Amino acid sequence: MSGEPVITFGAGPAKIPPEVKQRIVDGVIQYENSGISILEMGHRSQEFIGLIDRCSDRLRRLYKVPDNYHILFLQGGATGQFDAIPMNLLGNRDRKRADYLITGSWSAKAAKEASKYGEIREVCPKVPGFVALPEKSTWQFDPEAAYMYYCDNETINGLEFSEIPEPPNNVPVVCDMCSNFLSRPVDVSRFGLIFAGSQKNMGCAGITVVIVRKDLIGDELSITPNVLNYRLQVAAKSVLNTPPTFTVFGVDEMLRWVEDQGGLERMNCSSKAKSSVIYRLIDQSNGFYRCPSFPEHRSRVNVIIRLADSSLEKLWIAEAKKVGLIGLSGHRSVGGLRISLYNPIDSADLDRLESFMRQFMENHRDTGLQTIQNNE
Amino acid sequence: MSGEPVITFGAGPAKIPPEVKQRIVDGVIQYENSGISILEMGHRSQEFIGLIDRCSDRLRRLYKVPDNYHILFLQGGATGQFDAIPMNLLGNRDRKRADYLITGSWSAKAAKEASKYGEIREVCPKVPGFVALPEKSTWQFDPEAAYMYYCDNETINGLEFSEIPEPPNNVPVVCDMCSNFLSRPVDVSRFGLIFAGSQKNMGCAGITVVIVRKDLIGDELSITPNVLNYRLQVAAKSVLNTPPTFTVFGVDEMLRWVEDQGGLERMNCSSKAKSSVIYRLIDQSNGFYRCPSFPEHRSRVNVIIRLADSSLEKLWIAEAKKVGLIGLSGHRSVGGLRISLYNPIDSADLDRLESFMRQFMENHRDTGLQTIQNNE
Repeated sequence: MSGEPVITFGAGPAKIPPEVKQRIVDGVIQYENSGISILEMGHRSQEFIGLIDRCSDRLRRLYKVPDNYHILFLQGGATGQFDAIPMNLLGNRDRKRADYLITGSWSAKAAKEASKYGEIREVCPKVPGFVALPEKSTWQFDPEAAYMYYCDNETINGLEFSEIPEPPNNVPVVCDMCSNFLSRPVDVSRFGLIFAGSQKNMGCAGITVVIVRKDLIGDELSITPNVLNYRLQVAAKSVLNTPPTFTVFGVDEMLRWVEDQGGLERMNCSSKAKSSVIYRLIDQSNGFYRCPSFPEHRSRVNVIIRLADSSLEKLWIAEAKKVGLIGLSGHRSVGGLRISLYNPIDSADLDRLESFMRQFMENHRDTGLQTIQNNE
Repeated sequence: MSGEPVITFGAGPAKIPPEVKQRIVDGVIQYENSGISILEMGHRSQEFIGLIDRCSDRLRRLYKVPDNYHILFLQGGATGQFDAIPMNLLGNRDRKRADYLITGSWSAKAAKEASKYGEIREVCPKVPGFVALPEKSTWQFDPEAAYMYYCDNETINGLEFSEIPEPPNNVPVVCDMCSNFLSRPVDVSRFGLIFAGSQKNMGCAGITVVIVRKDLIGDELSITPNVLNYRLQVAAKSVLNTPPTFTVFGVDEMLRWVEDQGGLERMNCSSKAKSSVIYRLIDQSNGFYRCPSFPEHRSRVNVIIRLADSSLEKLWIAEAKKVGLIGLSGHRSVGGLRISLYNPIDSADLDRLESFMRQFMENHRDTGLQTIQNNE
């Protein structure tokens, strides 16, 4: 291992900036002037109520969240929301049916989960291999749907929307923003609900942020577990039962960091710049590196890469690890390589990765090109 | 505030031993030799799989958990389990009904939640004010129940079972052991399922341990969310989706500490000794302090205290805080005072609390006794 710090490019849990890590260490030793560790702090204490309120305020400022939206901090991850969303929203307008725009592994999972609770319709045929977003001309919306669900950034397939789908008849739009949350400004007023797990851009795993329009809650199915019940969680200000108090602290520190860095516009510039460097390297590698995602739909935050020869991919991951670059395997369901460029990845990290990618290509160009020719 | 460290006697999140806190700080800086923080560690990494396996092994050793039981680490707290248990177990034996032994606030909540999914029967009438466990002679079990549920220690009401209820016909016993988990040895083979949240004796909030007999899973209701589905979580070794990785680390460090301290027998001796000191002080206070719980059912871990005059209670809490003793308010649903004596509370902490209690009584005996006489 090199003398430089180890950097994770993992899809989540992900890198945390050194200065945030230090503040978290300080909080574990003693939270502010409380005399106790953040780990020991009661969830009904004034300090914790102050912390979760501050965290909510930061999100409201960063996203300019309108007053007619609640912000919730829940447990269970995105997978929990795959059930919570239909449980809480299918009863709206008494519809019991919803539209799902399936663009990759995560939206497909969400649709499968939701089908336990009502009639779930696919907005359009799936694109084979999820290498591109489906053509708009193929989208057919149900104007009577309780909601229309999509995933803004498919973490496994490396596809990202550049605009918000618009179903007719004011059907509320529900959006999985797990992996690109906090990476660009978003007009919240165009959504019915946005959710995101903490383990990408908001610190350690354990919290799921849900931003939901106030008029959409209250018609939950009777079999909704209390911990997933938006109406009850709103009434309890996300403290229906003991929340993961430490994780809320970590989220607050990450939100503070984003504010200190200049907010969501700045994160967007940085995400575009970082991903451009990698995509340019791929496109100029004469086929040594290949990104299966359709260029116009490529994600700014999860870059999917294949090498012509899968044995080279294993070597690539092993060699990267030797120079302190980790978390670079593709999702186990698809294999290959994946570079996640969340907010905390800085230009020094990117330089190290780019140098490694170029050096590896230099060292293995002959083998790589041989394989490309054999495959042709 | 005094120069001594602040100690929380809160009902959870609770005190963490200083040496454990230090190991957690070390892990936030760098987990073992990984080069990264525990906060950044991928949940599919070898390191994390090793960690969660080690955590499970420690629990299996501490409780001598038999091979025919699974150990799960889930999200959602006890409140999540109030739904997960009926969702996963009501289908057993195709019964769709269960018995609940209601002895306090938490078992009452669990029964209410469960009634959303099937027919829930109360084993006996509730004791008014939950000041004692119900007489055994009043218990009437349904021999055809899918399971019989009880709460081993009612955290709010300060009542603890000294033996395990035995329903007829091998009806599986399901037990909420949240607040006395790791506080005494238990014969796991007499249970169908045991669950406990991490925020009492297992570190910070965010994990719920579920120990479940293998033959009881697989008949979940079709509307069970994946994150609460025991069968799926068993197949995924508790990593169905991103678990709260840091919290698992904290649980592992607390389990290591219990092992280092000498295990569950030692925790039991210590719990008995600590609670005896406080109960003796109460019983010898000539009515200044009063414990509403029936003596034979008093909890070793949550001591409920009332003062004759509720304005004195507020003063008591404020004065305790001044000398660095916090987390001593009764649950907001019942008021009064509550002293939680979880494993990390040591004799020095107890001495400080006892001294404060005696001093307060000394300073306010006249007011206190006046109130007692007025009430008589």
